Amino acid sequence: MTLENVSSNKMFGGWLKQYRHHSDTLNCHMRFAIYLPPQAASQKVPVLYWLSGLTCTDENVMQKSGIQRVAAELGIAIVAPDTSPRGENVADDESAAYDFGLGAGFYLNATQAPFNTHYQMYDYVVKELPTLIEQHFPVSNMRSISGHSMGGHGAISIGLKNPEQYQSISAFSPICNPINCPWGQKAFNGYLGSDQTTWAEYDSSELMKNSTVKLPMLVDQGTEDNFLTEQLKPETLVDAAKTQQSPLTLRMQEGYDHSYFFISSFIEDHLRFHAKYLLK
Amino acid sequence: MTLENVSSNKMFGGWLKQYRHHSDTLNCHMRFAIYLPPQAASQKVPVLYWLSGLTCTDENVMQKSGIQRVAAELGIAIVAPDTSPRGENVADDESAAYDFGLGAGFYLNATQAPFNTHYQMYDYVVKELPTLIEQHFPVSNMRSISGHSMGGHGAISIGLKNPEQYQSISAFSPICNPINCPWGQKAFNGYLGSDQTTWAEYDSSELMKNSTVKLPMLVDQGTEDNFLTEQLKPETLVDAAKTQQSPLTLRMQEGYDHSYFFISSFIEDHLRFHAKYLLK
Repeated sequence: MTLENVSSNKMFGGWLKQYRHHSDTLNCHMRFAIYLPPQAASQKVPVLYWLSGLTCTDENVMQKSGIQRVAAELGIAIVAPDTSPRGENVADDESAAYDFGLGAGFYLNATQAPFNTHYQMYDYVVKELPTLIEQHFPVSNMRSISGHSMGGHGAISIGLKNPEQYQSISAFSPICNPINCPWGQKAFNGYLGSDQTTWAEYDSSELMKNSTVKLPMLVDQGTEDNFLTEQLKPETLVDAAKTQQSPLTLRMQEGYDHSYFFISSFIEDHLRFHAKYLLK
Repeated sequence: MTLENVSSNKMFGGWLKQYRHHSDTLNCHMRFAIYLPPQAASQKVPVLYWLSGLTCTDENVMQKSGIQRVAAELGIAIVAPDTSPRGENVADDESAAYDFGLGAGFYLNATQAPFNTHYQMYDYVVKELPTLIEQHFPVSNMRSISGHSMGGHGAISIGLKNPEQYQSISAFSPICNPINCPWGQKAFNGYLGSDQTTWAEYDSSELMKNSTVKLPMLVDQGTEDNFLTEQLKPETLVDAAKTQQSPLTLRMQEGYDHSYFFISSFIEDHLRFHAKYLLK
């Protein structure tokens, strides 16, 4: 496996780097970003995987969240994949909509043509990417996972399905019940087909209803988020977690919206939350 | 004077807002951003003016530097103007170059047609903008000034020329001696004309050579900045400051480049530096 270094920037005593590689899972070239804290120069560090939202790439969280400051203090690497397969041969939404196709892979394995040849983001995030990271960088096998919006859906659903692989889960403004919201229904119909019985395995609330997983989970949600009522539905996830006695903390943050300005305001809390489990 | 609110985002308990207004100085509509820390809800707060670099707008520092976190802690407002006049009627470089014309106002008052009808960024930053800010927002008349690259040139030259108006000056990677570098020579020739005797009044090193100003000044410069040797020349400014016994601290930061990743790594130090003088 060849990694091509695309960029390197020193930040907070560590290094932010972008790499390009061929993904066998996604059948295309992919770019990811990794922030290696200063501690990684002399020891293996744990990793927080960050899954981004609709329209994003690996760059948004690295440019806008300020996540590297606390990662440098605590000694945690941050890995950010892209949000979909990319390239000329990768099928996109017919009308290039922002919420399906490129930039909108929804962290699932598509079964429907023409998307099933590339859109296998679930396997990429769960298997190929961590294997790659642990082969090439000074990181341990201690992992946690977080994300924003579509990436919050990804973090929670992936964490619940792979509890042995992660120490903790967090999310900002996650799509908590995609089978019951427009974004999720459009995506799941397009990637998984009209048979809705296949959808539940990628729905965080449905997964939680049947879960015995007790991974610590922190969710922050702004009260002034324009997508809260129609798309995000955190109450559905919280209700399921209560029923299952799963340790989920939802914090409704008064006055905050769906943007990275919101994320930057609370990213430190998420890093310190994950550190309790990654550095134990 | 009418201010049109363009955006509002809650951040770190305060508010980031963009406004559009007609500038009499620049003879066009302008946008600026202001971050009001939580303390501004109940008291007047001091202001740090941030001048951005080539190609930037008011948005770069607000999206990428993480400046709001420490501003919220300390109770300092941040004001970021655009980097040039804007609009269809505003003359640009013939070839739309990144380093002259739109996005490259160089914080001076142009004397040469066609630029002199709009490119009066010095007067805008020194006079019109602070008057506007102090009329419309809960801020005191305690001001400091900072900036990056072309904006570092702006911050230092404006601070040295108006010491009664600012408490302290700082800069990241400033263009310290524009009359002796390609960026500055192109800009000054275009805006001020070929008579170089008019250039010195906007050159931080030349101003420092003849200055009795004792404003505290902090400059951070990355050693791996691609523009360091040809364009930035901090040693010229430092030499002049030593001769004049002006309190300038230059920190050469090993391994850092010219990007906002560098700025974000040290912006906290700059806020705490200015706070010593703004909050005394």
